[in-house]
Amino acid sequence: MAHMLEFWFEFGSTYSYLTAMRIEDAAGARGVTVRWRPFLLGPVFAAQGWDTSPFNIHKAKGEYMWRDMARRAERYGLPFQRLPATGPGAFPQNGLAAARIALIGLDEGWGEEFARGVYSAEFAAGHDIADPVLLQRLAREAGATGDVLSRAQTQANKDRLKSNVDEAFRRGIFGAPSFMVDGELYWGDDRLADALDAAAA
Amino acid sequence: MAHMLEFWFEFGSTYSYLTAMRIEDAAGARGVTVRWRPFLLGPVFAAQGWDTSPFNIHKAKGEYMWRDMARRAERYGLPFQRLPATGPGAFPQNGLAAARIALIGLDEGWGEEFARGVYSAEFAAGHDIADPVLLQRLAREAGATGDVLSRAQTQANKDRLKSNVDEAFRRGIFGAPSFMVDGELYWGDDRLADALDAAAA
Repeated sequence: MAHMLEFWFEFGSTYSYLTAMRIEDAAGARGVTVRWRPFLLGPVFAAQGWDTSPFNIHKAKGEYMWRDMARRAERYGLPFQRLPATGPGAFPQNGLAAARIALIGLDEGWGEEFARGVYSAEFAAGHDIADPVLLQRLAREAGATGDVLSRAQTQANKDRLKSNVDEAFRRGIFGAPSFMVDGELYWGDDRLADALDAAAA
Repeated sequence: MAHMLEFWFEFGSTYSYLTAMRIEDAAGARGVTVRWRPFLLGPVFAAQGWDTSPFNIHKAKGEYMWRDMARRAERYGLPFQRLPATGPGAFPQNGLAAARIALIGLDEGWGEEFARGVYSAEFAAGHDIADPVLLQRLAREAGATGDVLSRAQTQANKDRLKSNVDEAFRRGIFGAPSFMVDGELYWGDDRLADALDAAAA
């Protein structure tokens, strides 16, 4: 399908924040439509034998990531704060509940705004995005009606997110953000421009 | 020191090839002087418990790397071929001898040309850069005189390379290519532009 890009994101991922906040403007300028695809990195990391983010396992790489994120966020004009290593809101945060809600929101037209709200709450404000009160508020602000938390917990909706994770494995996705354009994988916020070039071609 | 950028590279590193072939033009256009710093990733990987490149350990990431390298090389107009997984010239190649020779060449003014020759032999032509006959030829073509292979094997020169590796650890370098500008670390061919911006500022 021409001029379409899939944006695979995980709510706990720092670099996905950079992409989520700017992809609509960047894609719009190129005439590219974005399909937002929430998934989870936990199962991907577990398949490598990791029980947390590789940025926590490899100290030097982790220290670099936080510095690089601060510089990149500044370059993009995005507020950003380093998350704590332990305690509430520690990195990586649990994006499971947010991802389940996002799936519903993307069906109903408020998912992208919700996703940006979640990322801002996490990386600009330092809130814990596993907090159901926070998620309910962000969903309402994005346009959700009714008890979205309960709707997100149905077995059918849980299965949909699991199916996204399975699809990510099948398609060779191993990190976030990732982009798929005509079967080609692009990994990392750094590759957004390349992916948009491919989608716009 | 203003307008100076350190370029830390490992001869076995695919993405270092992309940087090595274009950094002089890119830096020259910004009025930035480049100090080439050869080092070895083997000890860095060993400190993580890895006995080979992470691109070999993590299959999906490795498959992606080769595809991404092909696309990036095409974008930069550089010839590129995927190295074999086993046998002579397999990835990652052993860049130890080349790095020791490069140290001498960088003192004598032919090191950068030699480094580009090594990278081209490896990633454009698919040769095994551990081959001393190849290295001697590339050194001569770059401007070396005499028996550079023997000079590279003195204990003093071996110690210099080891000292570079120690310095890389101390300064938080965990991959290649890496750039240092005024104490700030930038990692990856993708960050060359950011590093040059910082150096030119």
